[in-house]
Amino acid sequence: MAEAFGDAATLGHALAFEQALAKAQAAEGLISTVEAEAVAHACAQPLDLTSLAHEAAHAGTLAIPLVAELKRLGARRAHLGATSQDLADTVLMLQAKAGLALIEADVARVVRALKDLAIAHGETPMLARTLLQPALPTTFGMKAAQWALLAADSGRRLRSEAGLAVRLQLGGAVGALHGMQGGGAGVAASVAASLGLPVAVPWHARRDAVAGLGGALGILAGAMGKIALDVALLAQAEVGEAFEPQVEGRGGSSAMAHKRNPAGCQVALSAAHRAPHLAATLLAGLPQAHERGLGDWQAEAPVMAELFLVTHGAVRAMALVAEGLEVRPAAMRRNLEAAGVGFDLGEARRLMQAALDAAEHD
Amino acid sequence: MAEAFGDAATLGHALAFEQALAKAQAAEGLISTVEAEAVAHACAQPLDLTSLAHEAAHAGTLAIPLVAELKRLGARRAHLGATSQDLADTVLMLQAKAGLALIEADVARVVRALKDLAIAHGETPMLARTLLQPALPTTFGMKAAQWALLAADSGRRLRSEAGLAVRLQLGGAVGALHGMQGGGAGVAASVAASLGLPVAVPWHARRDAVAGLGGALGILAGAMGKIALDVALLAQAEVGEAFEPQVEGRGGSSAMAHKRNPAGCQVALSAAHRAPHLAATLLAGLPQAHERGLGDWQAEAPVMAELFLVTHGAVRAMALVAEGLEVRPAAMRRNLEAAGVGFDLGEARRLMQAALDAAEHD
Amino acid sequence: MAEAFGDAATLGHALAFEQALAKAQAAEGLISTVEAEAVAHACAQPLDLTSLAHEAAHAGTLAIPLVAELKRLGARRAHLGATSQDLADTVLMLQAKAGLALIEADVARVVRALKDLAIAHGETPMLARTLLQPALPTTFGMKAAQWALLAADSGRRLRSEAGLAVRLQLGGAVGALHGMQGGGAGVAASVAASLGLPVAVPWHARRDAVAGLGGALGILAGAMGKIALDVALLAQAEVGEAFEPQVEGRGGSSAMAHKRNPAGCQVALSAAHRAPHLAATLLAGLPQAHERGLGDWQAEAPVMAELFLVTHGAVRAMALVAEGLEVRPAAMRRNLEAAGVGFDLGEARRLMQAALDAAEHD
Amino acid sequence: MAEAFGDAATLGHALAFEQALAKAQAAEGLISTVEAEAVAHACAQPLDLTSLAHEAAHAGTLAIPLVAELKRLGARRAHLGATSQDLADTVLMLQAKAGLALIEADVARVVRALKDLAIAHGETPMLARTLLQPALPTTFGMKAAQWALLAADSGRRLRSEAGLAVRLQLGGAVGALHGMQGGGAGVAASVAASLGLPVAVPWHARRDAVAGLGGALGILAGAMGKIALDVALLAQAEVGEAFEPQVEGRGGSSAMAHKRNPAGCQVALSAAHRAPHLAATLLAGLPQAHERGLGDWQAEAPVMAELFLVTHGAVRAMALVAEGLEVRPAAMRRNLEAAGVGFDLGEARRLMQAALDAAEHD
Repeated sequence: MAEAFGDAATLGHALAFEQALAKAQAAEGLISTVEAEAVAHACAQPLDLTSLAHEAAHAGTLAIPLVAELKRLGARRAHLGATSQDLADTVLMLQAKAGLALIEADVARVVRALKDLAIAHGETPMLARTLLQPALPTTFGMKAAQWALLAADSGRRLRSEAGLAVRLQLGGAVGALHGMQGGGAGVAASVAASLGLPVAVPWHARRDAVAGLGGALGILAGAMGKIALDVALLAQAEVGEAFEPQVEGRGGSSAMAHKRNPAGCQVALSAAHRAPHLAATLLAGLPQAHERGLGDWQAEAPVMAELFLVTHGAVRAMALVAEGLEVRPAAMRRNLEAAGVGFDLGEARRLMQAALDAAEHD
Repeated sequence: MAEAFGDAATLGHALAFEQALAKAQAAEGLISTVEAEAVAHACAQPLDLTSLAHEAAHAGTLAIPLVAELKRLGARRAHLGATSQDLADTVLMLQAKAGLALIEADVARVVRALKDLAIAHGETPMLARTLLQPALPTTFGMKAAQWALLAADSGRRLRSEAGLAVRLQLGGAVGALHGMQGGGAGVAASVAASLGLPVAVPWHARRDAVAGLGGALGILAGAMGKIALDVALLAQAEVGEAFEPQVEGRGGSSAMAHKRNPAGCQVALSAAHRAPHLAATLLAGLPQAHERGLGDWQAEAPVMAELFLVTHGAVRAMALVAEGLEVRPAAMRRNLEAAGVGFDLGEARRLMQAALDAAEHD
Repeated sequence: MAEAFGDAATLGHALAFEQALAKAQAAEGLISTVEAEAVAHACAQPLDLTSLAHEAAHAGTLAIPLVAELKRLGARRAHLGATSQDLADTVLMLQAKAGLALIEADVARVVRALKDLAIAHGETPMLARTLLQPALPTTFGMKAAQWALLAADSGRRLRSEAGLAVRLQLGGAVGALHGMQGGGAGVAASVAASLGLPVAVPWHARRDAVAGLGGALGILAGAMGKIALDVALLAQAEVGEAFEPQVEGRGGSSAMAHKRNPAGCQVALSAAHRAPHLAATLLAGLPQAHERGLGDWQAEAPVMAELFLVTHGAVRAMALVAEGLEVRPAAMRRNLEAAGVGFDLGEARRLMQAALDAAEHD
Repeated sequence: MAEAFGDAATLGHALAFEQALAKAQAAEGLISTVEAEAVAHACAQPLDLTSLAHEAAHAGTLAIPLVAELKRLGARRAHLGATSQDLADTVLMLQAKAGLALIEADVARVVRALKDLAIAHGETPMLARTLLQPALPTTFGMKAAQWALLAADSGRRLRSEAGLAVRLQLGGAVGALHGMQGGGAGVAASVAASLGLPVAVPWHARRDAVAGLGGALGILAGAMGKIALDVALLAQAEVGEAFEPQVEGRGGSSAMAHKRNPAGCQVALSAAHRAPHLAATLLAGLPQAHERGLGDWQAEAPVMAELFLVTHGAVRAMALVAEGLEVRPAAMRRNLEAAGVGFDLGEARRLMQAALDAAEHD
């Protein structure tokens, strides 16, 4: 994920955008084929990533130094009719697309592993706890099925928001496609097709879908945090009902050799702790002035990158935890007996199945 | 909206829940018809709202004093197999349902008024501004169409999240429907039908949909904030391109009689300022321990009520602003001329229409 | 605390402000003694709280309907040279002053009770836990002393920020005291003295101290949350090392009669859960435009009121928890033995004393 | 600032910590001089930064791979009695100390430049604006003096919180200095002296001062955001009263060559937009379980680094803006005349001086 949002990926997507734009403009007759080829040629040259990143940081935008460099390399008509934000938003969405694929694959692992746990432990009685106090009996299968449904629903929301947010940005200086000589519709359709993104009404200052995507990532991180918190509480020495698997070189202590820390849960909880505030940054940034905001828009990209990073870290960590979870039915039974609340499981079996069915439905 | 989340509404929904539960349990043979009628009878008695609210605040839950009072009134089998959270979450969702109806009606007003503005001003040139600086020409119709699409999309997201979140909560003590003697499925279906809510796998500690609803409200509030910010910036004396309508008794100044403050925009901006943090509270509350959280769950209801209140205030305020907006084409033209960026509108007409079409599609 | 920020207190402080202003202006010769007496007379009349609150909500400010009402009652020169924000900010600070007194008294109770616990348990060995896993031995006294120091330091920060934030607001329309005919310095000094607030350079759009006060409240709420989380974890059935005292009518369950929920910890955790987002609202509101913001400033008062309310609730709840905490040294010893990490207490005694000393120093 | 929190600085501080610890332990007789020299020797060897960073990310802590590497290099007794968090927190505070020096130097530049502006424009009349509408006259000197006081007070708060937060962390495994054989006090004093940090009662799970420091950074970022918003609003073409200086290679537009964007204000507003949510992450992390939290503590370091980075970026940007601000008294006068609110300056001169005096007092 760090790669998906790294400098090399950023540059790669940016070059793909400029190349696709020139190709589309040649097809629409806005520039000549030779000019488009000059852009493609310049984009194929090795660029100095470090110096570009440095200049971009100074300029506050990658577009200006990148386009200057491409022009220096002969791409005289590069970036025609486009604005910095077209490049920046499109690059961000190409990164998001790659990031989402990584996340979705790991969400699927989490859901699958949790469902397997549920099915394996549909008859394993344990103590349910409310407000951190003993309540009544349930099964570990029920608990795992609830986790699976939470993960599945959070993954579904993410997919749905991604379907709204991940799209081409191409509006030109003020979202009215100046400089496309009336060929904007064709150019946009062609660039979108080249990049594998849907076309959209320019959304320079209409950021609801960005905030929606951020919220969905935040919810997924929080979902992983909920599962992690439960596992960490079950793994307390005095409870001892479940433990995350040990991973070589992780979860040790520099002061206490005997310790076996819940390192995967820690990653997920840390992410669940940071994500709401990252998502809130995007929400708070919705009131962006006029046709492009000042400061609020520019804060989005690093926040979104961080949100993808921590959320994916959480999902990946919980995939490992779920796949290797060590369940201790004997301890569950012992704690349940100690609570003295009987063994009536209510309708846990039926509801576990209902949760698993609901987690299935796509 | 204050009423929809007020004490009287809370009590009304709570009594409806208890009555529906008893009726359903009688139908399933869990209690007798006479017992169900005793519950219905108790629920019909006048209850002391103030004293109940006071006891509920002390107990930390409405269910305990309410059920005690109902039993005192003869409803011996009230609340059978239900838990405090069943009552609290269901009441919250009945309130959300009522609140959503209010919000959606006002979103529709906003969208309609903005579309009308767009159509009326499809040929009104004005200066587009990026980073608070003059950019290139656009039309006011384009600006209004972007606002309309933002409002429409935010309304759609809210409807979609509401479809996931607004549902019955009925899980009993630990989400396994203890005490329903195996008749839980029938009871839940019947209570859900009585209350007009869909049935659901108990979601006591699975709060993704609550956070999703909160996020959608936050996005809608932010969308209103964006429109409000634009209007307030256009209404600056030196710009003078659009003004919100004056409302008797609003927008005055206690120190300066000449002032005409953008009071509607103020309401929307204030809401957009608060909403992200309320939504973030819900996001941060996702990691709830085991079968019911301690502190995090209990924080949700007041936060959700506040979120509905400020969001609806914003939508209502912007409905009035949009419906009565005073547009000054002459000032728009004057500022555009002063900027010296010509009058080329690019593809503003086509894109305005595309925005209006996209705002339509449901 | 609900009273301190309630409508009656708001109105009382507002009338005190108007009366003090008129008195000061008479002393400076800006209005006649008779005119000042007319203001005092009007302020002494019974006012219709409900109708004023309603009009204030509509106008978006209390000042306008209140001053209109006072003028109707003969106070022709009321509010001279003042602006709505002067009244609103001063009222908020008078409320904050009253609220801080309540909070500080309860912080003192918390610190005292925790110190007593520390001293009583300086030799009570228990298991320290890191990352929710058994670590090495400590004493319960050490734990309580850490809590005490946390509470004491958080109380100190609050006092320090209150010393910066709680002050008179009197700047007139734009913070330049127009309409005071050069007598502003004298008037401000006199109003400040009447109200028991320090005078200050008008701070209409300079909100650092408000955000600082909010942050300090948030930290105090979080400190209470930390203590509450520890207590709730110790009170888990399988751990059983400490329990909050039972309070009649609190902590029960509507579904499980055997339950004894940590209701005080719940209140504190709920507050610690909400407070960061309330404090962040104030932080995010710092960039207020020009001489008075639009929307951001107006969001402060309700957020601050909520912050005082939840923070005080947390401190009050933890005072009761700390004063009545039931400590179980035998369970502590049993869990420590089970962990098999020996009984070496390190330098717990010395460090406990150091923590207690540090908690003392004011 | 990126350097102050970069990998090289992290490693440098970590090695300084380990070396100071060994030296102190030799002085206290806990290890031999030869053993301490072996630690010093190992710390002086060139270490592979990239591979250490990679292992640290995997282990979730730098201490474990670093100490292993030092031992491999012969430092058999390195890290004796210390825990990972001792190293991590101390390193963070050494970074904070370096970061604070950078920030304070730039705050001083901002305050100085704003005071100079105030003095130069104490008689420059301009229109004050409230709720984004024309209000009454003030002077630009008054405005700049308010900015100066805001910056000065925010700087003071930061210094005060830094005085509480920046300190040694040395508590050993559970904050009771196990393994120091009773010599902990001496060791801590000596390590603190070596590193130039004050000694403190171990604060592993007592994070009020960290949150306080974060809040102070957030307030400073917000203060810069307020100044930036005002400048950006003044720089609107239709207002034209002040402009930030142009910096080569900054503030340009890839689509519109005529544009002169407020790039410095953008940096500050972007920071002010992100900082509240970073500060809130720290506030929300206060309830850390027992003697070391799971997930919440581990989230602090990256958040704090980001907070330093964006806050310093904002202060640095506004130093350049304040030092080079282009003020246009003629435009100020023109807009003031157009507003038709006269030229009465109230007590702007006196209050400007009061603000400048208040900004002075340390």
